[in-house]
This record gives sequence, structure tokens and C-alpha cells, in this order.
Amino acid sequence: MRTDRKLNMTMLCDFYELTMANGYFECGYADKITYFDAFFRSVPDKGGFAIAAGLEQLIDYIEDLHFSGEDIDYLRSRNLFSEKFLEYLRDFRFTGDIWAIPEGTPVFPREPLVTVRARAIEAQLIETFTLLTLNHQSLIATKANRIVRAARGRAVMEFGSRRAQGSSAAIDGARAAYIAGCVGTACTISDQLYGTPALGTMAHAWVQMFESEYDAFTTYCKLYPTNATLLVDTYDTLKSGIPNAIRAFNEVLRPQGITKCGIRLDSGDISYLTREARKMLDAAGWETCKITVSNSLDEYLIRDLWIQDAKIDAFGVGERLITARSEPVFGGVYKLVAVENDAGEVIPKIKISENVGKITTPHFKKIYRFYGRDTGKAIADYLCVHDETVDDSGTLEIFDPEATWKRKTVYNFEARELPEPVYQGGKLVYKRPSLDEIKEYCARQVDTLWDETKRFENPQTYPVDLSQKLYDIKQGLLHDKGRSR
Amino acid sequence: MRTDRKLNMTMLCDFYELTMANGYFECGYADKITYFDAFFRSVPDKGGFAIAAGLEQLIDYIEDLHFSGEDIDYLRSRNLFSEKFLEYLRDFRFTGDIWAIPEGTPVFPREPLVTVRARAIEAQLIETFTLLTLNHQSLIATKANRIVRAARGRAVMEFGSRRAQGSSAAIDGARAAYIAGCVGTACTISDQLYGTPALGTMAHAWVQMFESEYDAFTTYCKLYPTNATLLVDTYDTLKSGIPNAIRAFNEVLRPQGITKCGIRLDSGDISYLTREARKMLDAAGWETCKITVSNSLDEYLIRDLWIQDAKIDAFGVGERLITARSEPVFGGVYKLVAVENDAGEVIPKIKISENVGKITTPHFKKIYRFYGRDTGKAIADYLCVHDETVDDSGTLEIFDPEATWKRKTVYNFEARELPEPVYQGGKLVYKRPSLDEIKEYCARQVDTLWDETKRFENPQTYPVDLSQKLYDIKQGLLHDKGRSR
Repeated sequence: MRTDRKLNMTMLCDFYELTMANGYFECGYADKITYFDAFFRSVPDKGGFAIAAGLEQLIDYIEDLHFSGEDIDYLRSRNLFSEKFLEYLRDFRFTGDIWAIPEGTPVFPREPLVTVRARAIEAQLIETFTLLTLNHQSLIATKANRIVRAARGRAVMEFGSRRAQGSSAAIDGARAAYIAGCVGTACTISDQLYGTPALGTMAHAWVQMFESEYDAFTTYCKLYPTNATLLVDTYDTLKSGIPNAIRAFNEVLRPQGITKCGIRLDSGDISYLTREARKMLDAAGWETCKITVSNSLDEYLIRDLWIQDAKIDAFGVGERLITARSEPVFGGVYKLVAVENDAGEVIPKIKISENVGKITTPHFKKIYRFYGRDTGKAIADYLCVHDETVDDSGTLEIFDPEATWKRKTVYNFEARELPEPVYQGGKLVYKRPSLDEIKEYCARQVDTLWDETKRFENPQTYPVDLSQKLYDIKQGLLHDKGRSR
Repeated sequence: MRTDRKLNMTMLCDFYELTMANGYFECGYADKITYFDAFFRSVPDKGGFAIAAGLEQLIDYIEDLHFSGEDIDYLRSRNLFSEKFLEYLRDFRFTGDIWAIPEGTPVFPREPLVTVRARAIEAQLIETFTLLTLNHQSLIATKANRIVRAARGRAVMEFGSRRAQGSSAAIDGARAAYIAGCVGTACTISDQLYGTPALGTMAHAWVQMFESEYDAFTTYCKLYPTNATLLVDTYDTLKSGIPNAIRAFNEVLRPQGITKCGIRLDSGDISYLTREARKMLDAAGWETCKITVSNSLDEYLIRDLWIQDAKIDAFGVGERLITARSEPVFGGVYKLVAVENDAGEVIPKIKISENVGKITTPHFKKIYRFYGRDTGKAIADYLCVHDETVDDSGTLEIFDPEATWKRKTVYNFEARELPEPVYQGGKLVYKRPSLDEIKEYCARQVDTLWDETKRFENPQTYPVDLSQKLYDIKQGLLHDKGRSR
């Protein structure tokens, strides 16, 4: 384990969080209790679901949340903040409540991944980092899960560090990819910090460094006889790379009785070359040799490779996974949904917008996921007001909040609340699962989705419905706000 | 200034760098002197040029390069590395030479942004982080510069932290955006670490927190009378937001004689709303009120807004800048181009590929940029062998290495070597410019490009030519390798 500390991230906040916080402080709103939801509006790549991730780093951030003397000096130098507020920041800690959907859960648009109940200042100050970690890791987990599903059970290795958008994109991106089903990563520090197995083969430089490709291969096999995956495309894959690899395997591994070995292809037509490679390896008695491919892979290319009968045992996926290249933004937002009045009553709040998709669902809410008792499959998610309870012993009529005439009665179902308490009164109450537990949970939860929701293109829209009570409150606020101001 | 240390990044390397390094060590190649080039193959977004960035963080990394006891323990636990190698890592430092094109320089495909001359192990181990920092920051600087050019002199503010791919994407991304011309960032910690001015307005939550929009605005104006930029789209921009903003300006700012103020629009049709807003503000005597817009902006949308006569003074650009959404990968690679033999002679190396675009330009090289003495504009870049010198007192015939019949004689030109020495024998010899110096240098250098190269779509290809000697060496190696192995 590494014991050196990461840079404290308290100051990784949009500057307006600080000016607003100072404002709340100055106008007597410091202790006002607010509710914020972090949610997203659409699934990247027009997919049917996303994978929640990033909570662990949110917890790390909250645990370490404090302003150092240097931070306060910096803020003072901006001549915008009152001395009283700066003094207040000196002892600032998070004292509120947080609920979150566990990492690895399939999630859908418009449902809160995280809900924060806290004093206005606290809730506001943690906005930027909360969104950053959820957006980043959910983005990568969602993309990685698509690629893993495309790979049909073959290993997918995360190889993208060099093209990642900065060091934490590499490190935390490898973590998210592992949660979502990758078997490991090239990123060594990720293994050291998180336990995502670090793995790899060799670079072209290794092959070029030796007098001949054959020398490079035999040397490598001698050094790593039980881990010899040889990169065969430095000069000519079929005429030189594979024959030299077979020679090296025959001369170094076979006498030792080692059958486990591999080749990697990083250029050329993967479909054709892997079929040829498979034939050559099999003909030489190396049926056990695994074929790994890399080079600009994603779920679409992998799907096409299967159609073309490519012979592949493992995929090394780089830039298109670690940057989620096809849709590199997870558009999570963090919106005020309620405040408490002086009597402690929860008053729902709404944000109207000329863009209808930007209108929020107000109030402090609960989220249930309904599972069929016979199938084990997820049927619908159901948002209701915090004081409502779903009785899953009978039937329940649910409806599409965008098209209220679309109604459906669910029966024989189990209703499970999705979010779990993470903080209560500033105290961490969540038992953090291990990374491997999250990974296994993720795989099981993805299995609860019907294939229709998992399709890459034009998937079935999974229902995220509102209770009648919540729906009525939202409509009431919409009509009310439409008139006023 | 912050004094807490960042996580040491020595272990942010692909695992194969370590297995290869151990291999070089074990087979006696530890002291072999190698030359690696870091270069890219195409400009993102099909642009005409990229902006080099990320060198400062490469230097930070090299300065801090070492393996801790914990790192070595981790490596030992993998059962792949020899004890002698692990012992060697204990005192590992970078002892080689590095040349780099300064940050902020416009750069072109196939020219080395960084050249490393070092022992094989050292050069190999720094590959991943070198690429990561150059790829990430060059990507963002390149994108930001496009957006800044589209904004035609209006301020562009980087607002993307919450959608960034991890914390360093936010922090270092804001740095790269600033180099490329943004006036500042929402990312507070970036200001604190790098001096990229942190700025911002207010969120919808501020407006929702108060009894009315009018209350929210007057309170803000009272708190920040000289920095009042009011977000006017929480309820209804034209019927409520702008009238309330004008009322607040009239009641709070006017009596104090303050004319500087602003509004921000974050939704709706920016073109229409800004034109209406401008009319309303002007009619109310607030010609000095600046209009800031945000919401999914990029260079294409900004270009269209000008065509539609939008009235905009500043742009807040978020996710599309900080993730370079339209093309989120800067495909820099790091390739062995030469080794030294026992006599100290530099032996060029090439990597062939079935993908012609992946063939490298071999050898330890120099890069010149030719500027017209009359225009000050950049004419061509010229790669030659390290022992060649360009005489710019006369004329020089250059040719396109892809189409050697395309020849051109340059005259009245000044040849400047682009890369600067950064490390010599492991010692930092580069005087690091300040961030503002880099920013100013970048603006000046972009000005040396003709408009044809700056076009967003289908720009003129800027010539990156090879000297006859370098061309001949490359051809010789290609034909030689084509035959052998």
C-alpha cells in the first residue's frame, strides 16, 4: 500500500461555490438546511443504462475536507470574502447527511445518484468535486461495461494511461474500468493504490532494441517463461513476427513444458491476421497460445470482429475506453431540490428552464427499484417523496411521468431502496465494500437487466417513474412558478 | 502557494515499462543509450495545428522521479523482477538528456515534441507519464485555442471542472486552457497552484435559495457590488430574470455609481435571448452591463452565434473544452528512433507497420522552423539529422516527403531550432518560463501562422519536411527492413 497522501482537494471547487458560500454566510443562510440531488440527464452513447461509480473517491474527499491556512490566505488575497467567513472556514467540516446509490449499480437518467442534506454552505462547497468524481468514474465504468459486454467473456484489459486526460484520469479511470468488468490495467499505480491487477506485454521498442526480432523474443521468453506475450507486428506479422514467436516458444518454452503463452497484434487488419495467426499457431502445436489484440478498439469494432470470425482471446483497449472517446462527457448535475423552513419542514424546490429537459424533479426523495420475484429482473425504478413507502406485497400502478396515459400495473415484485446512507450528521456510516466486491456486485446487477436495455443501439427505455404524490408536487410547482416572478 | 505535495507519479507507468526495464537490466542492456521521440500523427478535429503543452508537469515528474521502499515492495510482490533490478531501482534517477519544444508553440504531426536520450531503462520508464502529460495538455490547449479564436477577442472562461475526467483533468486542463488564451477558470485550486485566475458568477441554487429572484439578485449585488454577474435564467429570462437584474442594478449599484456589472445566460436560445437582453439592458441605461453566456459551447456554436448577430461579451465554456469533446484523444506516441553502439555512434532505428501512417521517422534529429524575414510568418518545419545545420543566409530547396516531386525553394528566411535543451546528463538546464510568459508566447506564435492554417475545417497542410539526408536514411531502412527478418 502507498502511504503518501494525495493533494487535498477541498479547493478543487468552482470559485462561485466559495462566493456563494460567503454570501449564504453573510446573509444569515449559513445554517439553512438544503437538499441537493446529483443526477444525470441522458446515458452516454445513447445506451440503455449507466454504471454508477466514483463514490469511494467522494468519501475520501469528504473525509479530508478542510481548508488549510494556505487555502485561507489565498482566499483572503482575493479581497472578496469577509474575515468572519474566512474564520468560519478554518474549522469547516462536513456535518450533513449523504445518501448514495452504491458503486457498480446500473443507473438511469433523472434518478439521484447522490443526495446531500446539509447546511447550504456545506452542500454548495462540495458540489464541484461530487460531480467531478461521479461524472468521471461513471463515464468510464459505463463505457468499459459496454466494451466488456461486446467482448463476450474474453478478457478486456485497460491499456489507456498514456492517452488519459491527466494522471487521475489514468488512475481512477483504471479503477472504474475494473469495476465495470475489465480484468486489469496497464496502470501500475492503480494496482498499487486500488488493487486493479497491473498487467502488460511488451512495446515495439523491446523488439527494436535487439539485433533481431528472434533475439528479442527468445530473450523475453527466457526472462518471463510463464508470462511471455510477444508483440508480433514490429516488422511483418505473418512473415516474420509469428514465425519468430513460434520459434521462440519452441526453443525456450517447450523444453520447460510450458504451454501458456501469447502473442499480441497492434496493427493491420485484426480480423484477417488473427485468423491466420490462429492457423499458424495451431499448426505448430501452440493451440494454447492466446491471441491478444489492441489498436483503437471499442465496442463497435469488437462486435464487428466477431461477425468476421476473428480469433481473439483478449483485448487491450486504450484511448477509446480511458477517454470514453465516442461520448467523453457524463453530464451529471447537482441541483437544489428542497430546503427546510424554520419549523424543520421540507419545502420542495424546482428549477424551471426554457429547455424542458433541464427542469428538475423537486423534493427530498426515495428511490426504489422493483425486481420481478419470478425473473429476478429489474422492472422499473420508482421515485417517491421521502415519507412515502412502497408496499410490495400487492400490486402497484405506475405511470410514465412524460406520458401519464402510459400506465402499467406491477405485481409479484420486490421493492428495494437503491440509495444507502453514507453520512449521517457528518459521520461516515457506510461500510465501504472492497473493489472486488463492487466488481462482483456490478456484474450481478447488470445481469438483472433485460437484454433489451443492454442493446448498444436504440435500447428499450427503462422506466423511471414518479409516485402520484411526487408527480403532483412537481406539477404544482411548475404551474406556480410559471405564474409568479 | 500550496506546499502540500502531489502524489509521486513514478509508478504511473504502464506495467510493461517495468518488465521491459527489468529485461534490459537482466540482459545487459541497462546502459545502452537510446533515443526516443514523442510525437503525434494527426491534429485533433482535423485542425491545421496543435499547441504543445504539458512540459512543466513532465519536468515536475522527472524532478521527483524515484522509487520508494513501498514501490519496491509492491514490485517484489509481483514475483517478476530480479532482486538486483529492485536494488537498482532504489537509487534510480533520470540521468539522461531531454529536448523539448516549449509549451505554447504551435506544432505539427510527425515532429518530435520531446526527444529523450537516455539509458534504455530510464527512457523506457518515463514513456507513459511523458505521453500522458503531453497528450492531455496539448489536447486541451489545442481545443481551447480553437474556442478562443472563435470568440474573436471576447473573454473565454474555462468552466468545466465538474465534467472533467478526474481531478488532474480539471486542474491541469485549466492550466492548458489558460496557456491557449482563456482568461481564467472556475477551478479555484488551479489558480492557487498555477495562477490561472479563478472566476465565476452564481449557480441556480443561489437564486432558488431566496424567497424571490429579486431578493437573490439584490442580496448578491449588495455583497459583491463590483463583481455582480447575475444568472438570469432560473425562471424566465426575459419576463423575470432580466427585469429583476435591472431592478437590482438600479437599486443597489446605481446609487453607488457602479457601472460595471453583468448577466449570465445558461439555457434557451442564446442568439435570440442575448439580442433581447442587450436591448433591455441598453434601454434601462445599462450599456455597460456585460453579457456572459454558457451552456454546451464550443468553437462551432460560437461561430454560428456571431453569424446570427448574438450580443455576447464573454463565454463560459465547460465540458466541450475540458474534455475536448469533439475529439478527446491526442494521439501522441513515443518511439525508439536510434541507439548508440559501443563506439558511441548513433544508429538510426525504424518501426515498420502495415499501417503506413504508423511508420516512424528514424534517427536523432533536429527541427527547424523557417520564418519569412519579410512577413514574420512560419513557412515550413524542417527535420534533419542531428549533425546537419541549416544555412539560412541563402536559399534551400525543400520537398514533401510523401510526394517528393512537390518541391519548393525557400529564400529570405530565418531558421530557428524549435526544441530547447531541458535536461543534460540528468540535470535540469531549462529555465522554466512563468505561466503568463507561456501564454503570451503562445499568442505570439499562433500569430506567425497564416490564416489558411488556422481554418477550423479543411485547413491548409503546413509543411513538415525532411532533409535529403534524413529522407535517404529513412528510405534505406525501410527497404532494408522490408527484406530482412
